[in-house]
Order: sequence, then structure tokens, then C-alpha cells
Amino acid sequence: MSNPRPIGVFDSGIGGLTVVKALRDRLPNETILYLGDTARVPYGSKSPETVQRYALELAQMLVQKNAKAMVVACNTVSSIALPLLTRKFSVPVIGVIEPGARAALEATRNRHVGVIGTRATIRSGAYEKALRSTDNNVLVSSRACPLLVPLIEEGLLDDDVTDRVIVRYLEPLLSEGIDTLVLGCTHYPLLSVAIGRALGGEITLVDSAQNCATAVQEILDRQSLRSPATQHGELHVALTDAADNFLNVARDALQLSFGEIELQALP
Amino acid sequence: MSNPRPIGVFDSGIGGLTVVKALRDRLPNETILYLGDTARVPYGSKSPETVQRYALELAQMLVQKNAKAMVVACNTVSSIALPLLTRKFSVPVIGVIEPGARAALEATRNRHVGVIGTRATIRSGAYEKALRSTDNNVLVSSRACPLLVPLIEEGLLDDDVTDRVIVRYLEPLLSEGIDTLVLGCTHYPLLSVAIGRALGGEITLVDSAQNCATAVQEILDRQSLRSPATQHGELHVALTDAADNFLNVARDALQLSFGEIELQALP
Repeated sequence: MSNPRPIGVFDSGIGGLTVVKALRDRLPNETILYLGDTARVPYGSKSPETVQRYALELAQMLVQKNAKAMVVACNTVSSIALPLLTRKFSVPVIGVIEPGARAALEATRNRHVGVIGTRATIRSGAYEKALRSTDNNVLVSSRACPLLVPLIEEGLLDDDVTDRVIVRYLEPLLSEGIDTLVLGCTHYPLLSVAIGRALGGEITLVDSAQNCATAVQEILDRQSLRSPATQHGELHVALTDAADNFLNVARDALQLSFGEIELQALP
Repeated sequence: MSNPRPIGVFDSGIGGLTVVKALRDRLPNETILYLGDTARVPYGSKSPETVQRYALELAQMLVQKNAKAMVVACNTVSSIALPLLTRKFSVPVIGVIEPGARAALEATRNRHVGVIGTRATIRSGAYEKALRSTDNNVLVSSRACPLLVPLIEEGLLDDDVTDRVIVRYLEPLLSEGIDTLVLGCTHYPLLSVAIGRALGGEITLVDSAQNCATAVQEILDRQSLRSPATQHGELHVALTDAADNFLNVARDALQLSFGEIELQALP
């Protein structure tokens, strides 16, 4: 087949490229269509109804482009709209919450897991539900960290201001006694070095991008949807508005390569 | 007249309430309709085409509500869409750039003005153009400060992290020799104490909200559009998405009072 079906990946903006990076590393034969809703980013402070409406629009665009699977590379959307998307579309839909929760339960020794994310993700309680549905005895401490995304988008990945903000957000979780921390926002892997520095060596970091890529691989294998090993996977990036500086920050930090950005009109 | 026409005020989100505060203080007899596009905030990192499209939609809604004048309480929109709005609508349209630029030229002694704002505002060069169109010899040093809005929206109005970020943004402007600084974003008056602290007493701060309110008063007077002095002006707030925490931050810091928030559907 000369034009195998791509994996569709969408996010509220550019942050989901951390998931794309994990997918590229793990599934180099797959072609990926990335769709970032930069015209309406960020979703983290928007209402559930609005996030669901936007998610349906983006998913519809990817299905129209013949995506064989859909990856919701955004914790906010995963936490709010995954059941809706799964109901509406026949292709497999993979979010970042379930895989992250599963990995956290495998990592924790003291059954006390921390979760950080945007306001919308934390307010949704999605990680808490996902963690508890597997292990009813797990203790979850969660915290919204609204400043981390802007700091990342400013490119302050290795900076004392960012370090101070991280320490301020994480101190309460540490004193509550977590031994594992879920990075519940697809931007956050870009801060994993700084967060690791703030946490010391005692705490296990769970990167939802990595665990999402593992879940995608499992589902493609189970449904015999993998592209042939001879195929060279490509990466296409479409955005709903012109890219700003953060695209360069993410591309450089993740060492991703892609061609010209397509501008995708919203309905 | 039992139902005099209101002044329509719009912004990408909640920040424009600083302009509302200045209008309420100065024009207590006027009823104000505030429309904040919280479903698509922030505009500061979006493209000019997208900002223009959003601005037209919001302005149209206010005109449908019979606004007698339109205040663009957003530097990003003022810097990008004001000529378009002025062309499209017959009611007077007042932005924040011209009044701020005028006040800065009155304040500066050494003819060297600093301007801070969002990326979109600074990239547009709108303050520079407005300043130079009056005084071709004025020197302008400008700087985008993308972290200030998220810090304000987190409520960190009096905080050492915010102070450090402010100092980092302002130091280059100070060493270039400005004697006047325009707060070119409607959020920034909420940080005027912190910014004043960082600047010391030598630099004059120009608050675009205050100067915009003065300009509105002048235009209403000139066009005989003022409400009768017997009228008790009301404030109505409509948002395109549910309000988040920042509404409380702004309401408390500005000591504004308004009733229930109306949810305004987008077209």
C-alpha cells in the first residue's frame, strides 16, 4: 500500500509534541498527523463543555484525513472528553491518563502517588479516578500548576525562576509523602530535568507521553494496524493558527524534525 | 429615557476589567456591558488574522446589544484590529493604545519611553507607531513580557517570584535609559505596585486603563452621548466561557461589584 493510514494526534497546542516524540522513537514506521489547536490554546482553564466541543471538532478533522487511530496528546482533553470521543468515533482513541495511571501504580512502593497538571485536569479528578479504579487503596495527592506551561512556553526550561515555582508547587506534595509523581500535562516532560532536580532522587517521575506511546503500540498490535516495517514514517504538523516561539522551543528541546507547518482552518 | 444605551467594553478575557474599573470611577452614571472572550483567551500569542476575526465577532455582539460606544479594553486587539473596527461600525470605537501613547508623551522628560505588553502587542509595533506619529524624535524601547499575565491570573500580585520576573523583564529597558514606562496590557495595572517597586521612584508609570477612560469621557462629551447625571450606571459582565479563578482575583483587587455572570455563546 503506497499511502498507509496515519496515526492522528491532537492537542490544544504544541505541548503534545512530547507525545509525538515518544511515538516517533517507539514507532518509526508510522506516519503521524499532528493537529494543534493554537488558535484556541490553552484549554486548561476552559469549561468542560467548551473543551468537549473543541475536542470533537479536532477529532473530526483527523478522521477526515483517514487516521487509523487517534491519540489525545493532551491531559485536559483526555480527562474531560475521552468517553465522548470513544463513543463518537470507530477508530481506537488513546488518551494519556490511563497509561500514566497504570505506570504510576507499577512504580509506587508506598501507594502514595502525586499528580500535577493544569487546573482543568486536576479539577476533573481523572487521574484519581483512573488510579483508584485499579487500586482502591492508593492515596493520591494532586496539585494544579498553572504557571508551568507559560514558563515552558517562554523557553525557561533551565532557569532559577522556574526552579522556584516548581519547588513551591511540589513542596506540599512532598511533605504529604508521595513516592511517585505523575507529570499530568504533556508540556511537563520538557521540565523533567528541572522537576527531577527539585524532587531529589527519592521520587519516581511518571512521564505520560512515554506511557501513552506504549499504549498506542499495544493497541496497534492488538488490532493489526501496524504499518509495514519497510515503511519510513513521516511527521506532518498542522496548527489552527500561526506557530509562535514555543514551536521552536519544543522542536529544539525534543529534536523533532518536520517540514512546513500546515495552517488548518477551524469549522 | 428608562433604558439608556450602554457603553460596550470587550476584551480577550478578564484583564479588561481594569479599564472597567477606571470607567466606573470616572463615569458613574454610565451603564457598562463587559464582554470577555474567556473561551478563546489569550489573544496575545495568536496571529493578526485570528485576532481580527475574534474582535469583529465580539464587537458585533455589543452592537447588537445597542452599545452607544465601544471600548476595546485589550492592547492586543487595539494594536491589531482598531482600524478594522472603526471602519466596520458607526459607533465610536476607543482603544487603549492612543490614549496611553498620548499620556506617555506628556510624561516623558528625556523623550525615551518604554513599552511592555504581550508578544502580539509588542510585535505589532502599535505603541511605537502611535508615539512616533506625534513626536518623531521620541525614542522607544519595548519588550514583550509573556509571563506577567499568567502570574497575575495566578493571583501572585505581591510575590517574590513575580518581582524577580518583573526585574528580569525591565532591567534591559532601564539600562537603555527610559524615564517613562507604558503598561501596554490591561492586566498590568494589577501589578502596578510591584512594577513601581522594581522601577524605583525615577520612572513614571503610564496606566493605559486610566488614560483610556479619559478618552472615553472626552468622546462621549464631544458627541453628546453622556447619560443623565441622575442615572445610576450598572455593570453587566458577560463571558464566552465559565469564569475561572482570575475573575475573583480581579474583582477583589479592583473592588468591582457586579451581579451574576452571563454566559454568551459564540457565533
